[in-house]
Amino acid sequence: VGLGPGGAAHRTPAATAAVRHATTVIGYGPYVDLAAELIRGRAIRSPIGQEATRAKEALALAAAGERVALVCSGDPGVYAMASLVLEHAVEFPGLDISIIPGVTAALAGAAAVGAPLGHDHAAISLSDLLTPWPTIAARVEAVAAADMVVSLYNPRSSGRDWQLPAALEILSRYRSPATPVAVVTHAGRPSLTTSITSLGAVDPGTVDMSTIVIVGCSTTRTLDGRMVTPRGYVP
Amino acid sequence: VGLGPGGAAHRTPAATAAVRHATTVIGYGPYVDLAAELIRGRAIRSPIGQEATRAKEALALAAAGERVALVCSGDPGVYAMASLVLEHAVEFPGLDISIIPGVTAALAGAAAVGAPLGHDHAAISLSDLLTPWPTIAARVEAVAAADMVVSLYNPRSSGRDWQLPAALEILSRYRSPATPVAVVTHAGRPSLTTSITSLGAVDPGTVDMSTIVIVGCSTTRTLDGRMVTPRGYVP
Repeated sequence: VGLGPGGAAHRTPAATAAVRHATTVIGYGPYVDLAAELIRGRAIRSPIGQEATRAKEALALAAAGERVALVCSGDPGVYAMASLVLEHAVEFPGLDISIIPGVTAALAGAAAVGAPLGHDHAAISLSDLLTPWPTIAARVEAVAAADMVVSLYNPRSSGRDWQLPAALEILSRYRSPATPVAVVTHAGRPSLTTSITSLGAVDPGTVDMSTIVIVGCSTTRTLDGRMVTPRGYVP
Repeated sequence: VGLGPGGAAHRTPAATAAVRHATTVIGYGPYVDLAAELIRGRAIRSPIGQEATRAKEALALAAAGERVALVCSGDPGVYAMASLVLEHAVEFPGLDISIIPGVTAALAGAAAVGAPLGHDHAAISLSDLLTPWPTIAARVEAVAAADMVVSLYNPRSSGRDWQLPAALEILSRYRSPATPVAVVTHAGRPSLTTSITSLGAVDPGTVDMSTIVIVGCSTTRTLDGRMVTPRGYVP
Protein backbone atom coordinates (compact mmCIF):
# COMPACT_ATOMS: atom_id res chain seq x y z
CA VAL A 1 0.00 0.00 0.00
CA GLY A 2 1.41 3.38 -1.02
CA LEU A 3 0.37 6.10 1.41
CA GLY A 4 1.56 8.88 -0.88
CA PRO A 5 3.94 11.63 0.19
CA GLY A 6 3.17 12.45 3.78
CA GLY A 7 -0.27 13.56 4.92
CA ALA A 8 -3.78 12.54 3.99
CA ALA A 9 -4.14 15.04 1.12
CA HIS A 10 -2.22 12.80 -1.29
CA ARG A 11 -3.32 9.39 0.02
CA THR A 12 -5.63 7.73 -2.48
CA PRO A 13 -9.03 6.25 -1.53
CA ALA A 14 -7.70 2.82 -2.56
CA ALA A 15 -4.84 3.12 -0.07
CA THR A 16 -7.12 4.42 2.67
CA ALA A 17 -9.56 1.53 2.18
CA ALA A 18 -6.78 -1.06 2.28
CA VAL A 19 -5.47 0.23 5.61
CA ARG A 20 -8.99 0.53 7.11
CA HIS A 21 -9.91 -3.02 6.16
CA ALA A 22 -6.66 -4.63 7.30
CA THR A 23 -6.60 -6.80 10.39
CA THR A 24 -2.85 -6.07 10.62
CA VAL A 25 -1.00 -3.01 9.38
CA ILE A 26 2.78 -3.35 9.16
CA GLY A 27 5.48 -0.94 8.07
CA TYR A 28 8.47 1.13 9.05
CA GLY A 29 7.30 2.95 12.20
CA PRO A 30 7.01 6.50 10.84
CA TYR A 31 4.98 5.22 7.86
CA VAL A 32 2.60 3.36 10.17
CA ASP A 33 2.22 6.67 12.04
CA LEU A 34 1.23 8.40 8.78
CA ALA A 35 -1.86 6.20 8.63
CA ALA A 36 -2.51 5.98 12.40
CA GLU A 37 -6.05 7.38 12.30
CA LEU A 38 -7.12 4.71 9.79
CA ILE A 39 -5.85 1.63 11.60
CA ARG A 40 -8.59 -0.52 13.13
CA GLY A 41 -6.60 -3.72 13.61
CA ARG A 42 -3.16 -4.43 15.00
CA ALA A 43 -0.24 -2.17 14.09
CA ILE A 44 3.30 -3.53 13.77
CA ARG A 45 6.03 -0.89 13.70
CA SER A 46 8.97 -2.54 12.00
CA PRO A 47 12.52 -1.19 12.32
CA ILE A 48 14.39 0.36 9.40
CA GLY A 49 16.96 -1.89 7.76
CA GLN A 50 14.76 -4.95 8.34
CA GLU A 51 13.00 -4.81 4.99
CA ALA A 52 13.31 -8.49 4.07
CA THR A 53 12.15 -9.55 7.54
CA ARG A 54 9.20 -7.16 7.28
CA ALA A 55 8.19 -8.49 3.86
CA LYS A 56 8.33 -12.09 5.07
CA GLU A 57 6.44 -11.25 8.27
CA ALA A 58 3.68 -9.58 6.23
CA LEU A 59 3.46 -12.61 3.93
CA ALA A 60 3.43 -15.08 6.84
CA LEU A 61 0.61 -13.17 8.55
CA ALA A 62 -1.37 -13.16 5.31
CA ALA A 63 -0.74 -16.90 4.88
CA ALA A 64 -2.11 -17.36 8.41
CA GLY A 65 -5.38 -15.76 7.32
CA GLU A 66 -4.90 -12.11 8.23
CA ARG A 67 -5.78 -9.22 5.92
CA VAL A 68 -2.42 -7.45 5.94
CA ALA A 69 -1.60 -3.92 4.74
CA LEU A 70 2.13 -3.35 4.35
CA VAL A 71 2.46 0.43 4.18
CA CYS A 72 5.11 2.59 2.49
CA SER A 73 5.26 6.32 1.95
CA GLY A 74 5.09 7.47 -1.67
CA ASP A 75 4.59 4.56 -4.08
CA PRO A 76 5.31 1.01 -2.87
CA GLY A 77 6.67 0.06 -6.28
CA VAL A 78 9.44 2.68 -6.41
CA TYR A 79 12.54 1.98 -4.26
CA ALA A 80 10.24 0.43 -1.67
CA MET A 81 8.65 -2.81 -0.49
CA ALA A 82 6.54 -4.10 -3.39
CA SER A 83 9.36 -5.79 -5.27
CA LEU A 84 10.69 -7.38 -2.08
CA VAL A 85 7.24 -8.73 -1.17
CA LEU A 86 6.75 -10.21 -4.64
CA GLU A 87 10.20 -11.81 -4.56
CA HIS A 88 9.36 -13.56 -1.27
CA ALA A 89 5.75 -14.30 -2.26
CA VAL A 90 6.93 -17.36 -4.20
CA GLU A 91 7.53 -18.96 -0.75
CA PHE A 92 3.84 -18.36 0.14
CA PRO A 93 1.86 -19.65 -2.85
CA GLY A 94 -1.80 -18.80 -3.31
CA LEU A 95 -1.90 -15.44 -1.53
CA ASP A 96 -4.06 -12.66 -2.99
CA ILE A 97 -1.64 -9.72 -3.26
CA SER A 98 -2.56 -6.25 -4.56
CA ILE A 99 -0.05 -3.45 -5.10
CA ILE A 100 -1.79 -0.12 -4.45
CA PRO A 101 0.09 2.70 -6.16
CA GLY A 102 0.71 6.12 -4.69
CA VAL A 103 2.22 9.48 -5.57
CA THR A 104 5.97 8.89 -5.47
CA ALA A 105 8.42 11.49 -4.07
CA ALA A 106 9.58 12.65 -7.51
CA LEU A 107 6.02 13.54 -8.55
CA ALA A 108 5.20 15.27 -5.26
CA GLY A 109 8.52 17.11 -5.26
CA ALA A 110 8.06 18.15 -8.87
CA ALA A 111 4.56 19.54 -8.21
CA ALA A 112 5.91 21.53 -5.27
CA VAL A 113 8.34 23.44 -7.49
CA GLY A 114 6.44 23.59 -10.79
CA ALA A 115 6.61 21.06 -13.61
CA PRO A 116 10.20 19.88 -14.05
CA LEU A 117 9.10 16.38 -15.18
CA GLY A 118 7.00 17.67 -18.09
CA HIS A 119 9.04 15.72 -20.63
CA ASP A 120 11.32 12.64 -20.61
CA HIS A 121 12.91 11.92 -17.23
CA ALA A 122 14.62 9.29 -15.12
CA ALA A 123 14.79 8.23 -11.48
CA ILE A 124 18.11 7.08 -10.04
CA SER A 125 18.89 6.15 -6.44
CA LEU A 126 22.26 7.33 -5.17
CA SER A 127 22.32 4.69 -2.43
CA ASP A 128 25.23 2.35 -3.05
CA LEU A 129 24.25 -0.03 -0.24
CA LEU A 130 22.67 -2.47 -2.71
CA THR A 131 24.07 -1.21 -6.03
CA PRO A 132 27.75 -0.73 -6.89
CA TRP A 133 28.72 2.92 -7.40
CA PRO A 134 30.09 2.35 -10.93
CA THR A 135 26.62 1.14 -12.01
CA ILE A 136 24.99 4.22 -10.48
CA ALA A 137 27.57 6.54 -12.03
CA ALA A 138 27.08 4.95 -15.47
CA ARG A 139 23.34 5.54 -15.24
CA VAL A 140 23.79 9.16 -14.18
CA GLU A 141 26.16 9.65 -17.10
CA ALA A 142 23.75 8.00 -19.57
CA VAL A 143 20.83 10.26 -18.64
CA ALA A 144 23.16 13.28 -18.53
CA ALA A 145 24.38 12.57 -22.05
CA ALA A 146 20.84 11.92 -23.32
CA ASP A 147 19.69 15.29 -21.89
CA MET A 148 16.97 13.83 -19.68
CA VAL A 149 15.70 15.39 -16.44
CA VAL A 150 16.67 13.19 -13.48
CA SER A 151 15.21 12.75 -9.99
CA LEU A 152 17.85 11.63 -7.50
CA TYR A 153 16.37 9.41 -4.75
CA ASN A 154 18.21 8.67 -1.48
CA PRO A 155 20.62 11.49 -2.33
CA ARG A 156 22.53 11.82 0.95
CA SER A 157 22.61 10.48 4.48
CA SER A 158 24.86 11.15 7.45
CA GLY A 159 27.05 8.17 6.54
CA ARG A 160 26.84 8.56 2.77
CA ASP A 161 27.83 12.07 1.75
CA TRP A 162 30.09 11.95 -1.31
CA GLN A 163 27.66 10.37 -3.79
CA LEU A 164 25.57 13.51 -4.40
CA PRO A 165 28.56 15.75 -5.23
CA ALA A 166 29.91 12.95 -7.45
CA ALA A 167 26.60 12.65 -9.33
CA LEU A 168 26.34 16.43 -9.76
CA GLU A 169 29.89 16.50 -11.07
CA ILE A 170 29.00 13.92 -13.73
CA LEU A 171 25.93 15.94 -14.72
CA SER A 172 28.06 19.10 -14.87
CA ARG A 173 30.22 17.56 -17.58
CA TYR A 174 27.17 17.62 -19.88
CA ARG A 175 25.08 20.53 -18.60
CA SER A 176 25.52 24.23 -17.96
CA PRO A 177 26.12 25.33 -14.34
CA ALA A 178 22.97 27.44 -14.79
CA THR A 179 20.76 24.32 -15.25
CA PRO A 180 17.87 24.54 -12.77
CA VAL A 181 17.94 22.10 -9.84
CA ALA A 182 15.10 21.60 -7.35
CA VAL A 183 15.82 20.53 -3.77
CA VAL A 184 12.59 19.40 -2.08
CA THR A 185 12.50 18.02 1.45
CA HIS A 186 9.42 16.42 3.05
CA ALA A 187 7.41 16.62 -0.19
CA GLY A 188 3.69 16.52 0.56
CA ARG A 189 4.11 17.15 4.31
CA PRO A 190 3.42 20.27 6.37
CA SER A 191 7.18 20.51 6.97
CA LEU A 192 7.81 20.83 3.20
CA THR A 193 10.77 22.96 2.16
CA THR A 194 11.64 23.72 -1.44
CA SER A 195 14.42 25.55 -3.17
CA ILE A 196 15.24 26.06 -6.82
CA THR A 197 18.95 26.49 -7.32
CA SER A 198 21.31 25.64 -10.17
CA LEU A 199 23.68 22.82 -11.00
CA GLY A 200 26.65 25.02 -10.17
CA ALA A 201 25.25 26.13 -6.81
CA VAL A 202 23.64 23.11 -5.10
CA ASP A 203 24.46 23.06 -1.38
CA PRO A 204 24.65 19.37 -0.35
CA GLY A 205 24.19 20.51 3.26
CA THR A 206 20.51 21.19 2.47
CA VAL A 207 19.99 17.58 1.33
CA ASP A 208 19.17 14.53 3.47
CA MET A 209 17.32 11.21 3.09
CA SER A 210 13.96 13.03 3.13
CA THR A 211 15.01 15.09 0.11
CA ILE A 212 14.42 14.57 -3.58
CA VAL A 213 16.84 16.39 -5.91
CA ILE A 214 15.57 17.06 -9.44
CA VAL A 215 18.15 18.14 -12.02
CA GLY A 216 16.78 19.79 -15.16
CA CYS A 217 17.79 19.23 -18.78
CA SER A 218 18.80 21.74 -21.46
CA THR A 219 15.20 22.93 -22.01
CA THR A 220 14.32 23.28 -18.31
CA ARG A 221 13.75 26.90 -17.28
CA THR A 222 12.93 28.90 -14.19
CA LEU A 223 9.79 31.01 -14.76
CA ASP A 224 8.41 33.24 -11.99
CA GLY A 225 10.20 31.16 -9.37
CA ARG A 226 9.00 27.84 -10.77
CA MET A 227 10.97 25.09 -12.50
CA VAL A 228 9.45 24.08 -15.84
CA THR A 229 10.44 21.56 -18.51
CA PRO A 230 8.33 22.17 -21.64
CA ARG A 231 6.56 19.19 -23.19
CA GLY A 232 8.13 19.61 -26.55
CA TYR A 233 11.80 19.36 -27.31
CA VAL A 234 13.13 21.61 -30.06
CA PRO A 235 16.89 21.14 -30.38
CA VAL B 1 -5.07 19.00 -11.00
CA GLY B 2 -4.09 15.36 -11.53
CA LEU B 3 -7.09 13.06 -11.35
CA GLY B 4 -4.97 9.93 -11.21
CA PRO B 5 -5.40 6.97 -13.52
CA GLY B 6 -9.09 6.62 -14.25
CA GLY B 7 -11.65 6.17 -11.53
CA ALA B 8 -12.08 7.59 -8.05
CA ALA B 9 -9.99 4.90 -6.29
CA HIS B 10 -6.71 6.59 -7.23
CA ARG B 11 -7.83 10.24 -7.10
CA THR B 12 -6.26 11.98 -4.12
CA PRO B 13 -8.26 14.03 -1.60
CA ALA B 14 -6.29 17.12 -2.70
CA ALA B 15 -7.42 16.63 -6.30
CA THR B 16 -11.01 15.94 -5.24
CA ALA B 17 -11.12 19.11 -3.12
CA ALA B 18 -9.69 21.26 -5.92
CA VAL B 19 -12.38 20.11 -8.38
CA ARG B 20 -15.18 20.49 -5.80
CA HIS B 21 -14.17 24.03 -4.90
CA ALA B 22 -13.65 25.23 -8.47
CA THR B 23 -16.10 27.66 -10.02
CA THR B 24 -14.91 26.41 -13.43
CA VAL B 25 -13.49 23.00 -14.30
CA ILE B 26 -11.75 22.75 -17.66
CA GLY B 27 -10.02 19.87 -19.41
CA TYR B 28 -10.02 17.49 -22.33
CA GLY B 29 -13.60 16.19 -22.41
CA PRO B 30 -13.02 12.59 -21.25
CA TYR B 31 -10.96 13.86 -18.29
CA VAL B 32 -13.73 16.28 -17.28
CA ASP B 33 -16.05 13.26 -17.40
CA LEU B 34 -13.76 11.37 -14.98
CA ALA B 35 -14.54 14.00 -12.34
CA ALA B 36 -18.17 14.66 -13.34
CA GLU B 37 -19.71 13.80 -9.97
CA LEU B 38 -17.48 16.35 -8.20
CA ILE B 39 -18.15 19.36 -10.41
CA ARG B 40 -20.30 22.03 -8.77
CA GLY B 41 -19.45 24.95 -11.08
CA ARG B 42 -19.24 25.26 -14.83
CA ALA B 43 -17.57 22.51 -16.87
CA ILE B 44 -15.67 23.31 -20.08
CA ARG B 45 -14.90 20.29 -22.25
CA SER B 46 -11.93 21.32 -24.36
CA PRO B 47 -10.99 19.49 -27.59
CA ILE B 48 -7.84 17.40 -27.91
CA GLY B 49 -4.99 19.08 -29.75
CA GLN B 50 -5.94 22.48 -28.30
CA GLU B 51 -3.64 22.26 -25.28
CA ALA B 52 -2.13 25.76 -25.54
CA THR B 53 -5.58 27.30 -26.04
CA ARG B 54 -6.88 25.35 -23.05
CA ALA B 55 -4.00 26.50 -20.83
CA LYS B 56 -4.50 30.13 -21.80
CA GLU B 57 -8.28 29.89 -21.35
CA ALA B 58 -7.80 28.48 -17.84
CA LEU B 59 -5.36 31.26 -16.97
CA ALA B 60 -7.63 33.97 -18.41
CA LEU B 61 -10.58 32.69 -16.39
CA ALA B 62 -8.47 32.66 -13.22
CA ALA B 63 -7.27 36.19 -13.98
CA ALA B 64 -10.94 37.20 -14.26
CA GLY B 65 -11.51 36.01 -10.70
CA GLU B 66 -12.67 32.42 -11.16
CA ARG B 67 -11.37 29.48 -9.13
CA VAL B 68 -10.30 27.24 -12.01
CA ALA B 69 -9.41 23.53 -11.91
CA LEU B 70 -7.65 22.39 -15.07
CA VAL B 71 -7.92 18.60 -14.93
CA CYS B 72 -5.66 15.92 -16.41
CA SER B 73 -5.66 12.16 -15.95
CA GLY B 74 -2.63 10.72 -14.19
CA ASP B 75 -0.23 13.42 -13.00
CA PRO B 76 -0.51 16.92 -14.51
CA GLY B 77 3.26 17.32 -14.40
CA VAL B 78 4.12 14.31 -16.59
CA TYR B 79 3.52 14.77 -20.36
CA ALA B 80 0.49 16.86 -19.52
CA MET B 81 -0.75 20.40 -18.89
CA ALA B 82 1.23 21.72 -15.88
CA SER B 83 4.33 22.79 -17.81
CA LEU B 84 2.21 24.46 -20.51
CA VAL B 85 0.20 26.38 -17.89
CA LEU B 86 3.34 27.58 -16.14
CA GLU B 87 4.90 28.65 -19.46
CA HIS B 88 1.85 30.81 -20.24
CA ALA B 89 1.41 31.99 -16.64
CA VAL B 90 4.09 34.64 -17.19
CA GLU B 91 1.46 36.44 -19.31
CA PHE B 92 -0.91 36.50 -16.30
CA PRO B 93 1.16 37.78 -13.37
CA GLY B 94 -0.02 37.46 -9.80
CA LEU B 95 -2.16 34.33 -10.12
CA ASP B 96 -2.12 31.77 -7.31
CA ILE B 97 -1.34 28.48 -9.10
CA SER B 98 -1.05 25.07 -7.40
CA ILE B 99 0.03 21.90 -9.16
CA ILE B 100 -1.76 18.94 -7.54
CA PRO B 101 0.12 15.72 -8.25
CA GLY B 102 -1.46 12.40 -9.12
CA VAL B 103 -0.56 8.78 -9.78
CA THR B 104 0.96 8.80 -13.28
CA ALA B 105 0.29 6.03 -15.82
CA ALA B 106 3.69 4.38 -15.30
CA LEU B 107 3.05 3.92 -11.56
CA ALA B 108 -0.50 2.66 -12.05
CA GLY B 109 0.57 0.37 -14.86
CA ALA B 110 3.48 -0.95 -12.84
CA ALA B 111 1.27 -1.72 -9.83
CA ALA B 112 -1.15 -3.59 -12.08
CA VAL B 113 1.56 -6.05 -13.17
CA GLY B 114 3.76 -6.23 -10.05
CA ALA B 115 6.74 -4.03 -9.26
CA PRO B 116 8.77 -3.45 -12.45
CA LEU B 117 9.87 0.05 -11.31
CA GLY B 118 11.46 -1.18 -8.08
CA HIS B 119 14.87 0.19 -9.05
CA ASP B 120 16.22 2.88 -11.42
CA HIS B 121 13.92 3.68 -14.33
CA ALA B 122 13.08 6.22 -17.00
CA ALA B 123 10.01 7.58 -18.78
CA ILE B 124 10.22 8.36 -22.50
CA SER B 125 7.43 9.51 -24.78
CA LEU B 126 7.45 7.96 -28.25
CA SER B 127 5.41 10.82 -29.71
CA ASP B 128 7.48 12.63 -32.31
CA LEU B 129 4.90 15.37 -32.81
CA LEU B 130 6.85 17.77 -30.58
CA THR B 131 10.21 16.01 -30.33
CA PRO B 132 12.41 14.92 -33.27
CA TRP B 133 12.71 11.13 -33.57
CA PRO B 134 16.55 11.15 -33.41
CA THR B 135 16.31 12.74 -29.93
CA ILE B 136 13.81 10.11 -28.80
CA ALA B 137 15.91 7.29 -30.27
CA ALA B 138 19.05 8.59 -28.53
CA ARG B 139 17.24 8.59 -25.19
CA VAL B 140 15.93 5.06 -25.69
CA GLU B 141 19.45 3.95 -26.59
CA ALA B 142 20.95 5.69 -23.53
CA VAL B 143 18.62 3.99 -21.05
CA ALA B 144 19.00 0.69 -22.93
CA ALA B 145 22.79 0.86 -22.62
CA ALA B 146 22.60 1.92 -18.96
CA ASP B 147 20.34 -1.09 -18.20
CA MET B 148 17.46 0.95 -16.79
CA VAL B 149 13.81 -0.08 -16.85
CA VAL B 150 11.84 2.23 -19.16
CA SER B 151 8.17 3.21 -19.35
CA LEU B 152 7.15 4.17 -22.89
CA TYR B 153 4.40 6.82 -22.90
CA ASN B 154 2.30 7.60 -26.01
CA PRO B 155 3.62 4.38 -27.55
CA ARG B 156 1.39 4.10 -30.61
CA SER B 157 -1.59 5.74 -32.30
CA SER B 158 -3.45 5.02 -35.52
CA GLY B 159 -1.33 7.54 -37.40
CA ARG B 160 1.95 6.83 -35.60
CA ASP B 161 2.74 3.15 -35.74
CA TRP B 162 6.44 2.63 -36.53
CA GLN B 163 7.94 4.30 -33.43
CA LEU B 164 7.18 1.46 -30.99
CA PRO B 165 8.80 -1.27 -33.12
CA ALA B 166 11.75 1.08 -33.68
CA ALA B 167 12.17 1.69 -29.93
CA LEU B 168 11.90 -2.04 -29.16
CA GLU B 169 14.50 -2.77 -31.83
CA ILE B 170 16.92 -0.34 -30.15
CA LEU B 171 16.29 -1.97 -26.76
CA SER B 172 16.81 -5.41 -28.33
CA ARG B 173 20.36 -4.47 -29.29
CA TYR B 174 21.19 -4.30 -25.57
CA ARG B 175 18.76 -6.75 -23.93
CA SER B 176 17.80 -10.37 -24.25
CA PRO B 177 14.61 -11.20 -26.20
CA ALA B 178 13.45 -12.86 -22.95
CA THR B 179 13.43 -9.51 -21.06
CA PRO B 180 9.98 -9.06 -19.47
CA VAL B 181 7.75 -6.37 -20.98
CA ALA B 182 4.42 -5.22 -19.52
CA VAL B 183 1.65 -3.94 -21.76
CA VAL B 184 -1.00 -2.19 -19.65
CA THR B 185 -4.04 -0.49 -21.18
CA HIS B 186 -6.49 1.71 -19.22
CA ALA B 187 -4.40 1.50 -16.03
CA GLY B 188 -6.55 2.23 -12.99
CA ARG B 189 -9.86 1.91 -14.86
CA PRO B 190 -12.47 -0.86 -14.80
CA SER B 191 -11.53 -1.60 -18.43
CA LEU B 192 -7.92 -2.37 -17.40
CA THR B 193 -6.12 -5.00 -19.44
CA THR B 194 -2.61 -6.23 -18.65
CA SER B 195 -0.21 -8.62 -20.27
CA ILE B 196 3.33 -9.59 -19.44
CA THR B 197 5.21 -10.62 -22.52
CA SER B 198 8.88 -10.40 -23.57
CA LEU B 199 10.99 -8.05 -25.63
CA GLY B 200 11.12 -10.58 -28.45
CA ALA B 201 7.35 -11.14 -28.48
CA VAL B 202 5.60 -7.77 -28.03
CA ASP B 203 2.58 -7.47 -30.32
CA PRO B 204 2.27 -3.78 -31.28
CA GLY B 205 -1.34 -4.48 -32.25
CA THR B 206 -2.21 -4.70 -28.53
CA VAL B 207 -0.85 -1.16 -27.93
CA ASP B 208 -2.66 2.15 -28.39
CA MET B 209 -2.57 5.66 -26.88
CA SER B 210 -4.23 4.38 -23.68
CA THR B 211 -1.39 1.91 -23.17
CA ILE B 212 1.80 2.16 -21.14
CA VAL B 213 4.59 -0.22 -22.19
CA ILE B 214 7.17 -1.03 -19.50
CA VAL B 215 10.38 -2.73 -20.65
CA GLY B 216 12.42 -4.44 -17.94
CA CYS B 217 16.18 -4.40 -17.39
CA SER B 218 18.64 -7.28 -16.95
CA THR B 219 17.51 -7.96 -13.36
CA THR B 220 13.75 -7.82 -14.07
CA ARG B 221 12.07 -11.19 -13.63
CA THR B 222 8.65 -12.77 -14.00
CA LEU B 223 7.58 -14.41 -10.73
CA ASP B 224 4.19 -16.12 -10.41
CA GLY B 225 2.85 -14.10 -13.33
CA ARG B 226 4.12 -10.79 -11.97
CA MET B 227 6.90 -8.55 -13.30
CA VAL B 228 9.45 -7.64 -10.62
CA THR B 229 12.63 -5.58 -10.63
CA PRO B 230 14.53 -6.16 -7.36
CA ARG B 231 15.65 -3.10 -5.39
CA GLY B 232 19.28 -4.06 -5.37
CA TYR B 233 21.45 -4.45 -8.39
CA VAL B 234 24.15 -7.12 -8.25
CA PRO B 235 26.01 -7.22 -11.56
